[in-house]
Amino acid sequence: MFISFEGTEGVGKSTLIASLNQSLSEKSAVVLTREPGGTPLAEQIRELLLTPKQEQMNPATELLLIYAARAQHLDQVIVPALSANKIVLCDRFVDASVAYQHGGRGMDKSQIDLLTDTFVAKMPDLTFWLDLPVEQGMQRAKNRGALDRFEQEKIEFFQRIQASYRQLAEQHPQRIIRLDASQSAKQLHQQALEIIEKFLGGKAVSEINPM
Amino acid sequence: MFISFEGTEGVGKSTLIASLNQSLSEKSAVVLTREPGGTPLAEQIRELLLTPKQEQMNPATELLLIYAARAQHLDQVIVPALSANKIVLCDRFVDASVAYQHGGRGMDKSQIDLLTDTFVAKMPDLTFWLDLPVEQGMQRAKNRGALDRFEQEKIEFFQRIQASYRQLAEQHPQRIIRLDASQSAKQLHQQALEIIEKFLGGKAVSEINPM
Repeated sequence: MFISFEGTEGVGKSTLIASLNQSLSEKSAVVLTREPGGTPLAEQIRELLLTPKQEQMNPATELLLIYAARAQHLDQVIVPALSANKIVLCDRFVDASVAYQHGGRGMDKSQIDLLTDTFVAKMPDLTFWLDLPVEQGMQRAKNRGALDRFEQEKIEFFQRIQASYRQLAEQHPQRIIRLDASQSAKQLHQQALEIIEKFLGGKAVSEINPM
Repeated sequence: MFISFEGTEGVGKSTLIASLNQSLSEKSAVVLTREPGGTPLAEQIRELLLTPKQEQMNPATELLLIYAARAQHLDQVIVPALSANKIVLCDRFVDASVAYQHGGRGMDKSQIDLLTDTFVAKMPDLTFWLDLPVEQGMQRAKNRGALDRFEQEKIEFFQRIQASYRQLAEQHPQRIIRLDASQSAKQLHQQALEIIEKFLGGKAVSEINPM
């Protein structure tokens, strides 16, 4: 089972993934990973993407770097883990590319879909979108310390990303479940865990989805 | 005018480009550049591509990294230089992706063409393919010192690349001109310069092409 976690900065993805890892690991082998990154090479690509630099990065360069890291991550980590019947918990995946590079940067969605169709062998079975007003998340992100190249963007950038996530959730109710990220970490964990258990018990995402 | 130079390892591209730069600079502004690379960020991507590593690089990752570097190079260097009426001399471009990643690595040519169609705004006006038996070129490359991640490949890899370059030259006689790279550096320079001058004088590549 392949689960991805999506949302703008500071919505609580890391906390949720860590607590789900703890609960799920009691019964199954779990692989906890993230994008961009997840392998030593893909983490080097992540560094290129996140480090603020003098040279303006072209949006197409950003998109292609993300898909380069993704191809490596799929090949080295995700596909082997799924083949070994492990549960993969992944902090961001394809939806982040649509939300950030299409919604945020204004790249054509068709260009992103084309890269997904061509280079992404496996899509998540279930995606949690952690929905939180952008201002609240950004405040949390700022409290974490120095801002990376994405976090340095203006609030309008993240509002476009948020709108893009909302649209994706509406378009893919058979895969994406919206979680109210203003809940406490404990409530969020409980809700997500129940959904995963229903899914593992054989229910389709669209049956579970409250949307 | 945008001219690219193609060929396997050690065929003499750098020497030819340097001497053409000297001759052409007398009359025009010339930008001398290379792929993967050509900007500080694209050179960082080049480092990722060329440095031998423990982790096996997936062929799709390699291809996408090359196109990420290319998008940056086009945006920051090639397109602005052409807009300013400069002559761009580029050591490797799109044909190298077909020869190395399709011919060498076995990626589908359609996947490479798709990336070219989507992310490459400008193709070369003229491409020189420096044709030399693979064994001779590899001997020269070995004499240059430590081998990079590509140069460490077996001879069969370069023979497939060579075959792919030959096919490209046959398919695109209106753009690609084969040069016999077993000539002396001086002869090679003279031949290439004459071709460039004919092209600048208004002749189409297919009229000049001896193929």
